[in-house]
This record gives sequence, C-alpha cells and structure tokens, in this order.
Amino acid sequence: MIRHTVVFSLRHAAGSVEEGAFLRDARVLAKIPGVEKFEQLRQVSAKNDYAFGFSMEFVDEAAYGRYNDHPDHVAFVKDRWMPEVARFLEIDYVPV
Amino acid sequence: MIRHTVVFSLRHAAGSVEEGAFLRDARVLAKIPGVEKFEQLRQVSAKNDYAFGFSMEFVDEAAYGRYNDHPDHVAFVKDRWMPEVARFLEIDYVPV
Repeated sequence: MIRHTVVFSLRHAAGSVEEGAFLRDARVLAKIPGVEKFEQLRQVSAKNDYAFGFSMEFVDEAAYGRYNDHPDHVAFVKDRWMPEVARFLEIDYVPV
Repeated sequence: MIRHTVVFSLRHAAGSVEEGAFLRDARVLAKIPGVEKFEQLRQVSAKNDYAFGFSMEFVDEAAYGRYNDHPDHVAFVKDRWMPEVARFLEIDYVPV
C-alpha cells in the first residue's frame, strides 16, 4: 500500500465559488483506475497554514505510476492544479 | 472525525537501534484513550525529506484535547520527541 497525500492552499478566496468548483472538479481524480480511498480534506491545524488535503491509496508503486501518467491526471495538473494552487506539499506513506 | 498527522525526521541514523527504539516506544501513544487508527508510516516521496509519519484519528476536538493533555503524551513529547526528533510538521484533517 502507498498512501499519496498532498496538502495545499488555493489562490481562491475561502468559501468562493471558484474554491468549490476546484474541489468538485478534482473528484475526477477519484475515478482514475487504481485510486482507492480518495478523500478531500480540510486542513485545520493552526501549526501550518495549508487549507486542504487530498489523500488516496494505491496497491503498489506501479498503480501509482499509472495514475501519475493517466491523461485525466496530467490534464488536471496542467489545467487546474498549476494555475489554481498557490502552495502545496506532497507526502507519501507506506507502512513502517 | 479529526485525523491528526505528523511527518518528521529523527536525529538518529536510518536503521539504527535508536530509531527502532523510538518507533517501538512511540506505540505508547496508541494506548491513550480516544486514539483510533494509530499508524506508524514511512515517508517515501522524493519531494520532501521527512522520513516517518504518525497518523491517528479522534472522534472530536474534545477527544483530541484529552489526548494532548494526557500524561503519557506529555511525557513522550518531553522525554522522547523533543530530544530525538530533528524536524516535524503537524497536519490535521477533517472531512471537507
């Protein structure tokens, strides 16, 4: 199991129509083959200033690679993530 | 549901006896009342240089607060976390 997470903040104002549209449209990622346990999360710790997180799991590195290369992921990164996300940090986990 | 996560690196060498002892002894946190789905994870993304993560869930903010204040948590932070952890970032999530 590989858990891929990304914590991020959007360029959009909190609660804006654009913020809602980004989160709604990002659900396309959940439909990419191999994606399991897709979650959209709100980041609430006062110890960092990111606003949201996505989390998903893959059965193995090969499945993660196929997701990364999938046209729907590539298009989302280019058309939505890069223009709309202000800052982000990717954190990936496997069991110890 | 609140998911409390912390990504971190130890001062110890990778694979050292001290690293193993830290991870083993940290399991005390899993036994604190209110802690659910406690996980010890290895951080594997090349896009950051943290080495490990812990993840746990609480039913609500009150349960999270009781964990923070619990003597076993307070003692672990003082006696093990502060001297042995080199860098860390806390990230907490709730469902969007």
